[in-house]
Amino acid sequence: MTQTNLTIILIEPQLAQNIGAVARAMLNFGLTDLRLVNPRDGWPNQDAIAPAAGADKILENIQAFPTTLAAIGDLNRVFAASARTHDMVKYIYSPHAALEYLATTAQQGQKVGVLFGNERCGLQNEDISLCEALIKIPTNPEFSSLNLAHAVVLTAYEWSLHINVSPSQIFRTGTTNLATREDLGKFFAHLEIELDRTGFLRHKKKRPTMVRNIRNIFQRANLTEQEVRSLRGIVRSLVRESQNT
Amino acid sequence: MTQTNLTIILIEPQLAQNIGAVARAMLNFGLTDLRLVNPRDGWPNQDAIAPAAGADKILENIQAFPTTLAAIGDLNRVFAASARTHDMVKYIYSPHAALEYLATTAQQGQKVGVLFGNERCGLQNEDISLCEALIKIPTNPEFSSLNLAHAVVLTAYEWSLHINVSPSQIFRTGTTNLATREDLGKFFAHLEIELDRTGFLRHKKKRPTMVRNIRNIFQRANLTEQEVRSLRGIVRSLVRESQNT
Repeated sequence: MTQTNLTIILIEPQLAQNIGAVARAMLNFGLTDLRLVNPRDGWPNQDAIAPAAGADKILENIQAFPTTLAAIGDLNRVFAASARTHDMVKYIYSPHAALEYLATTAQQGQKVGVLFGNERCGLQNEDISLCEALIKIPTNPEFSSLNLAHAVVLTAYEWSLHINVSPSQIFRTGTTNLATREDLGKFFAHLEIELDRTGFLRHKKKRPTMVRNIRNIFQRANLTEQEVRSLRGIVRSLVRESQNT
Repeated sequence: MTQTNLTIILIEPQLAQNIGAVARAMLNFGLTDLRLVNPRDGWPNQDAIAPAAGADKILENIQAFPTTLAAIGDLNRVFAASARTHDMVKYIYSPHAALEYLATTAQQGQKVGVLFGNERCGLQNEDISLCEALIKIPTNPEFSSLNLAHAVVLTAYEWSLHINVSPSQIFRTGTTNLATREDLGKFFAHLEIELDRTGFLRHKKKRPTMVRNIRNIFQRANLTEQEVRSLRGIVRSLVRESQNT
């Protein structure tokens, strides 16, 4: 087992059987960190044990979180597995390219993960706007909905193909790390409070879309810790300026 | 949906739920031809419907066969999905290379398939000796046993990546087709009858291994229809010769 890992995050999974099948699929390809956000039937759940087929360690170490941001807070890079072309400005990667990128990022000591939506309706825009990019698994357009564990096993398989291979591209960040999702979440909260206060987000109906679009701009920017600190400084500085005038 | 197809053959599958999950995984990547050899709980089976998640056409068209040879008789190329390194002289391909090869073969108008063993013990040597080569999915050596539908979804996914792409290698067969598995099966039967008669296979205990080894030689040879006819002519000719002396 390699030290580098890919975290799998399931958002509001419905069936404990699927959680078990996901655990098995992960361990088949050397992944061990599984996290849940609001599993419908609670956690732990006995129904996950049989389909895990012996991947008990994964089940025992599962963490459940109340929010997506809490579940991904410590990660530096998170992609969202989604078949739908959401109405957002986002990078969309093939599984091959996405996992190559995430494996390369992990090899540089960064923590990476992939978000999966639930069995009924996939990922919501709010969760996707917390992610850097989308992974689109190229399925039959007439029958595109994958079983949750099948989507995870394809992801884990592509990860395993790339994790021990020399990267074809590297993103150099110098002496600073990539920002964690928590850093970024705090920056968004900070920025949005100020934009509410200044009236930029005053249009109630358009507000959710505007917030998502702003977040997506910064998601695509591949920000480092240092850059997030700079951005927060910029916001603080602008706010002081406007308060003085 | 492309005209070229990859046939999936499940040998003695135990759970109808898995058959349904396999049907869903196949249709997700445009595959439609699923065949069963001696399904434990019979076929059709209502328990397959829910996990198929709407892939009803696949379920309705499933054919069940009493023997592996009957199930693959009309196919020109069959690979076996197997994690075990069997004690046979066989080509072993990665999923990527195997499905590229099978997709290329299908693009030349040949019928291709992959054999999967059952949930408990995978493929037996007898079935593997009916196949040209092995596909080894590179799993965690400490937890290598894949769920049956997970193995199929990885295979179908790799197929879909290659089927509409220009091949990197082509095996030219001139004006003749690749041999079908039935042609090859008849040749083996013919040869083995003669080898029994002449005493070459007289050692009862060693006979199964010897038969497998002989079959594997011809499996690796990528035989055309014409070449199988020639080989049968050679056997007939040798037998006549020995009967005359």
